[in-house]
Amino acid sequence: MPEPCPVPTTTPPNPARPPASGSALRGATLKHVVESQQFTVPLLMELFDRSRGMEHVVARGGTLDYQNRIMTTLFYTPSTRTRLSFEAAMHRLGGRVLSTEHAGAFSSEIEGEQVEDSIRIIGGHSDVIVIRHTAEDGARRAAEVSPVPVINAGDGNGGQHPTQALLDLYTIYRQRPLDGLSVAIIGELDKGRTARSLAYLLAKFDRVKMFFVSPPQLQMKQDILDYLDEHDVRYELESDIDRVIGEVDVVYQTRIRPERVRDMAGRNNDGRENDGLKRYAIDSKVVQRMKPDALILHPLPRTVELDKSVDADPRAMYFRQAMNGLYVRMALLTMLLDKEQAARSAWW
Amino acid sequence: MPEPCPVPTTTPPNPARPPASGSALRGATLKHVVESQQFTVPLLMELFDRSRGMEHVVARGGTLDYQNRIMTTLFYTPSTRTRLSFEAAMHRLGGRVLSTEHAGAFSSEIEGEQVEDSIRIIGGHSDVIVIRHTAEDGARRAAEVSPVPVINAGDGNGGQHPTQALLDLYTIYRQRPLDGLSVAIIGELDKGRTARSLAYLLAKFDRVKMFFVSPPQLQMKQDILDYLDEHDVRYELESDIDRVIGEVDVVYQTRIRPERVRDMAGRNNDGRENDGLKRYAIDSKVVQRMKPDALILHPLPRTVELDKSVDADPRAMYFRQAMNGLYVRMALLTMLLDKEQAARSAWW
Amino acid sequence: MPEPCPVPTTTPPNPARPPASGSALRGATLKHVVESQQFTVPLLMELFDRSRGMEHVVARGGTLDYQNRIMTTLFYTPSTRTRLSFEAAMHRLGGRVLSTEHAGAFSSEIEGEQVEDSIRIIGGHSDVIVIRHTAEDGARRAAEVSPVPVINAGDGNGGQHPTQALLDLYTIYRQRPLDGLSVAIIGELDKGRTARSLAYLLAKFDRVKMFFVSPPQLQMKQDILDYLDEHDVRYELESDIDRVIGEVDVVYQTRIRPERVRDMAGRNNDGRENDGLKRYAIDSKVVQRMKPDALILHPLPRTVELDKSVDADPRAMYFRQAMNGLYVRMALLTMLLDKEQAARSAWW
Repeated sequence: MPEPCPVPTTTPPNPARPPASGSALRGATLKHVVESQQFTVPLLMELFDRSRGMEHVVARGGTLDYQNRIMTTLFYTPSTRTRLSFEAAMHRLGGRVLSTEHAGAFSSEIEGEQVEDSIRIIGGHSDVIVIRHTAEDGARRAAEVSPVPVINAGDGNGGQHPTQALLDLYTIYRQRPLDGLSVAIIGELDKGRTARSLAYLLAKFDRVKMFFVSPPQLQMKQDILDYLDEHDVRYELESDIDRVIGEVDVVYQTRIRPERVRDMAGRNNDGRENDGLKRYAIDSKVVQRMKPDALILHPLPRTVELDKSVDADPRAMYFRQAMNGLYVRMALLTMLLDKEQAARSAWW
Repeated sequence: MPEPCPVPTTTPPNPARPPASGSALRGATLKHVVESQQFTVPLLMELFDRSRGMEHVVARGGTLDYQNRIMTTLFYTPSTRTRLSFEAAMHRLGGRVLSTEHAGAFSSEIEGEQVEDSIRIIGGHSDVIVIRHTAEDGARRAAEVSPVPVINAGDGNGGQHPTQALLDLYTIYRQRPLDGLSVAIIGELDKGRTARSLAYLLAKFDRVKMFFVSPPQLQMKQDILDYLDEHDVRYELESDIDRVIGEVDVVYQTRIRPERVRDMAGRNNDGRENDGLKRYAIDSKVVQRMKPDALILHPLPRTVELDKSVDADPRAMYFRQAMNGLYVRMALLTMLLDKEQAARSAWW
Repeated sequence: MPEPCPVPTTTPPNPARPPASGSALRGATLKHVVESQQFTVPLLMELFDRSRGMEHVVARGGTLDYQNRIMTTLFYTPSTRTRLSFEAAMHRLGGRVLSTEHAGAFSSEIEGEQVEDSIRIIGGHSDVIVIRHTAEDGARRAAEVSPVPVINAGDGNGGQHPTQALLDLYTIYRQRPLDGLSVAIIGELDKGRTARSLAYLLAKFDRVKMFFVSPPQLQMKQDILDYLDEHDVRYELESDIDRVIGEVDVVYQTRIRPERVRDMAGRNNDGRENDGLKRYAIDSKVVQRMKPDALILHPLPRTVELDKSVDADPRAMYFRQAMNGLYVRMALLTMLLDKEQAARSAWW
């Protein structure tokens, strides 16, 4: 009796060894998306070119030719917005979606099964897997055994969220040259998945300067600072938004929970009293001190750290940023699926 | 650098100001579906015409031409049946579905985010949003900021469930002229979303009379009664099913939880002893006293208030009623999407 | 006024009376899939022929012509993997999917509604229903009232999981003639839905011998043994894997929770000490004593009872087995939907 027709697969490259920054291999290295530092500048430029194209596809209400491709969203911890953004992207490409919004609670993995077995099985049923795992190395472990591309949609608490960083960077890129940018990254940076992933990406560009603005005890972790030192990227650690807000091109605001900044209560540079939170929150007053062409980004959801009074400011980019998530994820999916398609064709 | 291509949108009309009943603007006023009283008679007739057409589409196993349109079901509190009915409707139109069955538990909104931000983002990713929110004004708040049509799939405890009322009315309309109807609406009417929404719709037609049958402490709330008074619609408040069951054209039964009618135990008009519940429940004996051509409706799910012995009675309409939900929701989606399509075409 | 167009239905046959084994009516008897013993050998052969074809459809990345058909997965208790396998199957056929991953928690059925009402309603909205119910007779009750085909995706604790058994059998069939097989079925057999369903299927073939390997207190229940006695099928009850592992053609390993075999600690036949679990677990040492062409199956997920060191062994079939689930479920869906299509065509 003949063997069953195997699903064509290619050996996944080890994503633990990302190619050196600046590699000229456009697209050739993108098998999985595990961490933002794996993206080279040429790869980013290819992604952004494709994202521009996707803006037109969506605006015309069309879809592309991926009607037989299946994407699985495998979320061990729920994130309605990120999941729906990926799923909308796949649908706008004309593709199909398998979805689980709470695999952590709803699967037998809680009884001891490993993510590797789940991925081997689901990888046989779909053409690309979008995973949000609770462990910091969850996405990497998935990529190491998956027969199909894996995209990290956020892992662990201090892990990464590379597609968020890609859409953040694309939002800046659509408005501004990336070389020479000065960027304030504000919030609870020690646990800031999106801040961490963005720092890695910004470091790829020339003459960038980053200001990490956070209470000292919540500052950016040493691994990121070491990476920036290694790559000769300039940065400063700040504990007060007032000292940087007027001189940066981009303000990247992230979540701040009031209970984590309570002991920062005191007096601002300008003499105003504050309750700790005020030192890091952005409202219509803070915005007045920004450059007239500054960009205000936030990965959302927001609570107290970004006031609704800012929404009407033309510098507020955060809803456009969310919209860009659709275009960037569409573009990323095509890069991964086209490659897989080529492998599949070669196999037959 | 040029601006990104914006998603074409139109300014949403303020749904807090529904057009006057009887407006001749067929379809022109339907941007969102927030509450049943926003429907005019001509709009209802257009909806029902389209619903008839959908019966044929489904019976032939076909789909329509909405293959590039995406509907998001955003349910903050789960309702499997209502969600699946909307999703089936979108699929039968040939469209695509993004789904979350428990956004309340699975999103960061519990951490303080407002529904407005979620809607702005999801509205950029899909062409229509079906929302079930926990707050009574959740759907209205969503509609006020959404770039795409919003449909209220039930909000709050004493709020509305307008598409349920539309399918209820369509079920009657398919069997009976709506003018001159006498209708008994039975159950825990104080918390009856479906009963409330239906009362608003019935009030649009001539010479309708409603009997609200409920223990006095669970009766229909004053806001509905004021609305009916204002529009010169006849109604009576009753506490015993026996006094109306024999003279109405339509019996609209809704949920009754035994613990809420326990103190109604006593003796029926006909001398039968009952346990309170019996005063409001429908079984094969009660059915015998109905008019031979009466219609029995129930929004389902049912428990003790509608006995299975009634299922075989030709007057039992409730399973057909559930099926009509598919047709009415298909029709409603086409009315909203066709309008959005027109706006989109005009924009380009 | 004319009657609404009813959805064409055919009276469901009573699945409580499966046709006699060996029936020559190929396909004619498959209206619902409730339990594995309802499959005759000719029906199994038709299913396996179709499954072979599906391997080619999937490998070529194509889909079939079911683009207007809707499958609902109605899972009262979550099982991410089984659900995704069915949904992938429907998508690979070109079809559409309505999904609920936790109807038990998310529906009003917990408030007292019966599965029958849910099925009547959902059956009006979709073309086939895949149900996982908590009660042992949940799938049968659903099939008895459903206007469309119902597939049992696992019911109760000691119930059945017939599609798992079908894909298990297909995995063996692809490698080996089924007549004359000797099969060791290992694990907590008293609660083993998959083991029970497989035993029924294997009993259909000639000269099969089964070894049920389990601690005596967790052995296969009497109803299965009675069925095998009645059909003259050979079996033995064993409590130690060592006594059968070297002579069987197929090792069907299933879940073993360590706490249930703790009191089996002692000494193996070969004198090795063990902790109870070792008497039933498979690792690279146990595998050495198997026949060189034995097949190792496991329905997955696995934990301690099947060591990862076995994965590289060419006899390990369990990931291929999971993949076969896709092909068999695609084939099964076509058999049910083609039949429904024929009924629909006849009706019009």
